[in-house]
Amino acid sequence: MADLSLDCAVVQKVLVGFLANEVRKAGFERVVVGLSGGVDSSLAAYLAAEALGQENVCGILMPYRSSSPESAAHAQLVVTELGIQSLTVPITPMVDAYFAADPDADQVRRGNKMARERMSILFDHSARLAALVLGTSNKTELLLGYGTQFGDMASAVNPLGDLYKTQIRQLSRYLKVPQPIIDKQPSADLWEGQTDEAELGFTYAAVDQVLYWIVDQRCEIAEVIAQGAFDERMVRAVARRVQQSQYKRRLPVIAKISSRTIDRDFRYARDWGR
Amino acid sequence: MADLSLDCAVVQKVLVGFLANEVRKAGFERVVVGLSGGVDSSLAAYLAAEALGQENVCGILMPYRSSSPESAAHAQLVVTELGIQSLTVPITPMVDAYFAADPDADQVRRGNKMARERMSILFDHSARLAALVLGTSNKTELLLGYGTQFGDMASAVNPLGDLYKTQIRQLSRYLKVPQPIIDKQPSADLWEGQTDEAELGFTYAAVDQVLYWIVDQRCEIAEVIAQGAFDERMVRAVARRVQQSQYKRRLPVIAKISSRTIDRDFRYARDWGR
Repeated sequence: MADLSLDCAVVQKVLVGFLANEVRKAGFERVVVGLSGGVDSSLAAYLAAEALGQENVCGILMPYRSSSPESAAHAQLVVTELGIQSLTVPITPMVDAYFAADPDADQVRRGNKMARERMSILFDHSARLAALVLGTSNKTELLLGYGTQFGDMASAVNPLGDLYKTQIRQLSRYLKVPQPIIDKQPSADLWEGQTDEAELGFTYAAVDQVLYWIVDQRCEIAEVIAQGAFDERMVRAVARRVQQSQYKRRLPVIAKISSRTIDRDFRYARDWGR
Repeated sequence: MADLSLDCAVVQKVLVGFLANEVRKAGFERVVVGLSGGVDSSLAAYLAAEALGQENVCGILMPYRSSSPESAAHAQLVVTELGIQSLTVPITPMVDAYFAADPDADQVRRGNKMARERMSILFDHSARLAALVLGTSNKTELLLGYGTQFGDMASAVNPLGDLYKTQIRQLSRYLKVPQPIIDKQPSADLWEGQTDEAELGFTYAAVDQVLYWIVDQRCEIAEVIAQGAFDERMVRAVARRVQQSQYKRRLPVIAKISSRTIDRDFRYARDWGR
């Protein structure tokens, strides 16, 4: 097994510096972060509070009527522990208004609509507060495409996108994110009893290992299988997911007509000229 | 003045081939497109109908209560002329449910919320119909950042992103998009009498020229001013807008921790492996 453990002191320093630098370079002092009560958004809030000061972080709770009260309690715990600003914007009125015309819509469509509603609310408040939207997607989710494009995958700056889920947990323990948030089963909280690992069909401990070998170590799939540590079907399923979700990690593709096309020949850094 | 006129026969062929190829390569046959009644979305629908067949294009009209009835009539005209499927999903219930809690929100926040609501609806129907979302942002809008990030700027495939607004008009005439749609003043249709050119402070004819010199020809700003054809303040304002909106044309920035970071060292094409 690969050792995915982090040097937490170094990573903390890198991520805090990253946030302070990126936010200020863009001309901002503040961030907004959607607090789900889960470990990813909690950790993002802890890092941002250290980087920018507690007064410059606004946590936004966006429960749906079926969201677990425990989720809100955990989000509130982060707000209290950090002493940051917070705001609760229930998404039920907007989401229910939409699906009133289509009551048979399945859970996937509902989940994606909710994720995009939350993105839209975060960006609205970021404009109101002159703040940037903090991303909270981790590397495992991003690589598996286990998220909503233009929903929870959308943000301005993401301190967590290069950390696997097991590394998120390790860093969260180090930064003293409340223990119940770290210990609970990760869940999108769309319905009672939903968990990421049941939905994905593998544990984060296993999938993080497989992703590390395939992505970070650039191993061939056959090599990873030959290690003998993982179920062959699982390795193939993970590799397929990574490939099939690539579109979610890229910008819309633009037809090339001119000599200088956006995202092909015209692709300055995000902070060009700052 | 630079000659921005297109060889319409060639561009038509390229864009129709682009759409057929990109949509099928992604494993789809169909697209959905938000029809605003404006020339960009109308042209996109014309191109898609030719590339994929009229039966594989679904136009979605998403009026708000303050939208002009003329906009809906023009969108309907495109549906009728092309013989494509269509659907009307008013956004008023969702948008009004949101701003009920914040009645003093300004027009910019309202406009962005509406753009993101429409994006969210388009992606929801794209999932329901096993279709891709067609982008309709043109090069002028994209370069000026005159659009909503994760709103109208979000899509799967965009046939128009490398055509300036004046070129959109030229190609639309060639493809016989209904004349009233081409002739009317471009507008985001957020309030009565709003026009793009009044809001931007310059005409598309002028700004397309300036963008061409700065972006396509890579001229220095001083060189463009020295041509003597454009107001100096206008040239500087355009250059500033292009630079300051760069973040809208890039993915969220991820803090680098590992040896292989998404969108830095891990950046296969969107259609990787297809």
